[in-house]
Amino acid sequence: MGDAPLTHLDESGAAHMVDVSAKADSVREATAEGHVAMAAATLDAILAGDAAKGDVIGTARLAGIMAAKKTSDLIPLCHPLPIAKVTVEIEPASGGLDVRAAVRVTGKTGVEMEALTAVSIACLTIYDMAKALDKAMEIKDIRLLSKTGGKSGEWRRPDAAADKR
Amino acid sequence: MGDAPLTHLDESGAAHMVDVSAKADSVREATAEGHVAMAAATLDAILAGDAAKGDVIGTARLAGIMAAKKTSDLIPLCHPLPIAKVTVEIEPASGGLDVRAAVRVTGKTGVEMEALTAVSIACLTIYDMAKALDKAMEIKDIRLLSKTGGKSGEWRRPDAAADKR
Amino acid sequence: MGDAPLTHLDESGAAHMVDVSAKADSVREATAEGHVAMAAATLDAILAGDAAKGDVIGTARLAGIMAAKKTSDLIPLCHPLPIAKVTVEIEPASGGLDVRAAVRVTGKTGVEMEALTAVSIACLTIYDMAKALDKAMEIKDIRLLSKTGGKSGEWRRPDAAADKR
Amino acid sequence: MGDAPLTHLDESGAAHMVDVSAKADSVREATAEGHVAMAAATLDAILAGDAAKGDVIGTARLAGIMAAKKTSDLIPLCHPLPIAKVTVEIEPASGGLDVRAAVRVTGKTGVEMEALTAVSIACLTIYDMAKALDKAMEIKDIRLLSKTGGKSGEWRRPDAAADKR
Amino acid sequence: MGDAPLTHLDESGAAHMVDVSAKADSVREATAEGHVAMAAATLDAILAGDAAKGDVIGTARLAGIMAAKKTSDLIPLCHPLPIAKVTVEIEPASGGLDVRAAVRVTGKTGVEMEALTAVSIACLTIYDMAKALDKAMEIKDIRLLSKTGGKSGEWRRPDAAADKR
Amino acid sequence: MGDAPLTHLDESGAAHMVDVSAKADSVREATAEGHVAMAAATLDAILAGDAAKGDVIGTARLAGIMAAKKTSDLIPLCHPLPIAKVTVEIEPASGGLDVRAAVRVTGKTGVEMEALTAVSIACLTIYDMAKALDKAMEIKDIRLLSKTGGKSGEWRRPDAAADKR
Repeated sequence: MGDAPLTHLDESGAAHMVDVSAKADSVREATAEGHVAMAAATLDAILAGDAAKGDVIGTARLAGIMAAKKTSDLIPLCHPLPIAKVTVEIEPASGGLDVRAAVRVTGKTGVEMEALTAVSIACLTIYDMAKALDKAMEIKDIRLLSKTGGKSGEWRRPDAAADKR
Repeated sequence: MGDAPLTHLDESGAAHMVDVSAKADSVREATAEGHVAMAAATLDAILAGDAAKGDVIGTARLAGIMAAKKTSDLIPLCHPLPIAKVTVEIEPASGGLDVRAAVRVTGKTGVEMEALTAVSIACLTIYDMAKALDKAMEIKDIRLLSKTGGKSGEWRRPDAAADKR
Repeated sequence: MGDAPLTHLDESGAAHMVDVSAKADSVREATAEGHVAMAAATLDAILAGDAAKGDVIGTARLAGIMAAKKTSDLIPLCHPLPIAKVTVEIEPASGGLDVRAAVRVTGKTGVEMEALTAVSIACLTIYDMAKALDKAMEIKDIRLLSKTGGKSGEWRRPDAAADKR
Repeated sequence: MGDAPLTHLDESGAAHMVDVSAKADSVREATAEGHVAMAAATLDAILAGDAAKGDVIGTARLAGIMAAKKTSDLIPLCHPLPIAKVTVEIEPASGGLDVRAAVRVTGKTGVEMEALTAVSIACLTIYDMAKALDKAMEIKDIRLLSKTGGKSGEWRRPDAAADKR
Repeated sequence: MGDAPLTHLDESGAAHMVDVSAKADSVREATAEGHVAMAAATLDAILAGDAAKGDVIGTARLAGIMAAKKTSDLIPLCHPLPIAKVTVEIEPASGGLDVRAAVRVTGKTGVEMEALTAVSIACLTIYDMAKALDKAMEIKDIRLLSKTGGKSGEWRRPDAAADKR
Repeated sequence: MGDAPLTHLDESGAAHMVDVSAKADSVREATAEGHVAMAAATLDAILAGDAAKGDVIGTARLAGIMAAKKTSDLIPLCHPLPIAKVTVEIEPASGGLDVRAAVRVTGKTGVEMEALTAVSIACLTIYDMAKALDKAMEIKDIRLLSKTGGKSGEWRRPDAAADKR
């Protein structure tokens, strides 16, 4: 953590959209992850359905991809970006499903929010599709794994666990 | 957790939107919560800004309210609903900010997803506005606290912690 | 003007969406108007094009109708409503074009914002389509003319001018 | 005012989206303003609320910023643009609130409509949040102040009043 | 075909949104179909992929369901409706894929456009996902099969072919 | 038709958004067409209305133009693109109305889907505006006519009929 000012607040403290017009277009990528924790029986039901038809996981993946494209409509001060790639992967992990997203753009600002939004909406979609079985599911540990490109360069989450996944 | 089928999957396993046309209109409410964990200095910066101008927290609150209205556009199998009320509250809690949302509707289906979506987008907005300071923030423990109304009636999260908040 | 509190601010002053769940569904209507002031030559060009093909005015009318349906997506604390009717009328008036909209709904809250949004976006569309000719056009006097229905009942703008139009 | 044709009408008079593919990418900026006229007591109520919590003005500012990003979805023949900056400023002025927006892009066409849309939606949001107090408020004098960049170069509103603000 | 007036044109011929405020809420349903014609090898590729993972067809189904919810945003004079059910079925048929949608609502106007929009966007999505193989695919014979409910009652397409499917 | 893989399916068969970040920006264009078949009396009614006011055809044209801008929101794996031009032409042809769209962009991927989406939504709008007269109308033969630009270069539909139009 640095001591940079809160870049979305102007001098008087009012929220604004940061000016990126002077930044260079460059290839930028971000990856993020999250987890939906659920009862074992819920996970079994999803995976059984999934083995046969792939629908819970397939629907959540698509919802995440489509949400990445809506990021600037959802997050008030995000810039609209011509996203070049989105992938969302969902797989079983201890006590639930892991969700991971990667987003790439050639643009003037990074795609961290797009990756985090894709993960969040994919997790919410999993919740929606399984909530008749299990309302107590929790969405946990949504976090940025890495970002590359742009003036501030590369950032990687220091956690070993995140690295080795 | 019950043994209800996954209601979004039809007999052949393909995803579909559940038919709610035969359900009665009734007042339904849902509450949900989440947490953004961050470094102490990040929280201080947000609260200092907030004390003076209210903008990080105010922006995130509005983003959550507006996102609740977009839920059916984000979650593929959610029904569009004429939402009657949304509140989003954000306050400091151990190591970060707690976010809580309440949504109410008079309609044929519940608003759990609207409450969870409001919380998720409010959390993402906090991340966005403070990420220049702290990219390692994590969004944690997004979960339903309660739902009331409709045929399935009342549900409350069993956790003591959730109850006492 | 009364001394009602600002209903969008809760006790602590934070913005919220007013709870309308306890309100009765009733037929509610609102009408609003606005004006785009422009150079005489600009108006002539629009009307000449319009006489032949109707496009500036026709496009602005449609843009206004479509915008009424987006009101709750644009105005942060507006409720989504199942709009039952929108009309937008545009006609030449002293030094420009008058725009008037009427919106009707059967719902729990009024459609003042839908009517005002329809007028505003129709005016902006006129500006957009004629701005190559005249960047100095001004959008003026957007205001509510009347509202009917709901618990607060009927309201009519006191101006004689508005009444007699 | 010049004698340029109405660029959104093709030879047969039907509306179309002007081809900008041959234009060069350049930095373009536009500024616009508007005003919400209201009773003195309404302004007092807004400013009192604002002094304590900032919500009416803060909400309207955000609504304007977010609306700038939706311009091409609202104005039928506007091009979608990767907006690089939006600011919206709102301050008390004689008999109401002045709203001013500035938008910047690196792109093939100007952002006049984005600036005017930001102003219009910010004004409508002020109306929405104070309408319980005062339905007679009027939105007035929405107009372009300046544009820079692009082949047609700089344009500034000739009014002295606008210049000196 | 009857001799009803074009209900979207008012007396002066300008397009408007038909007033449905006086109509009763009733359960209304519509079904529609369409077809994507393609080379045999394209169909084989889709089905082979589909047998393994279900993605082309699964993606197109979801796109159709989500598009039904956007109908009033796409078709200028359509009313927004609280859709209660959408299903989209896609299956191989002579020389391509048949798409069929059913939409149900409890509301004041019918859902023919929602069903036709679901079919159209599902067909476009199939095209998108297979266009690297076959740009010559054609989307054919999008048509209403039936509508029920509302004052005008039941309508069924007279074609024997449509009936027997 | 070639033997290219289905580019939207990754190795495991799950749908993803193709990475275009390494592609060069170039001017790309696509044209597409479709047809709405209708009873002669329906066509007469549309054209009579159109002769006087232009509204059915004018509304459908605008709906097509606006829909082209929403393509990436409708088609799950489409990239958002800064569209530079859209035209939609509608004219009477044997037994109905022909719809043709042309879309141009300077970007990293083609605009085939934008052109096909513009045609589809224009056809649906024609259906919507005339369905009170004729529910049996059919939307037929939506297809790509040509694409130019990009690495894969030019493609033209082999049909003589399409060429000579």
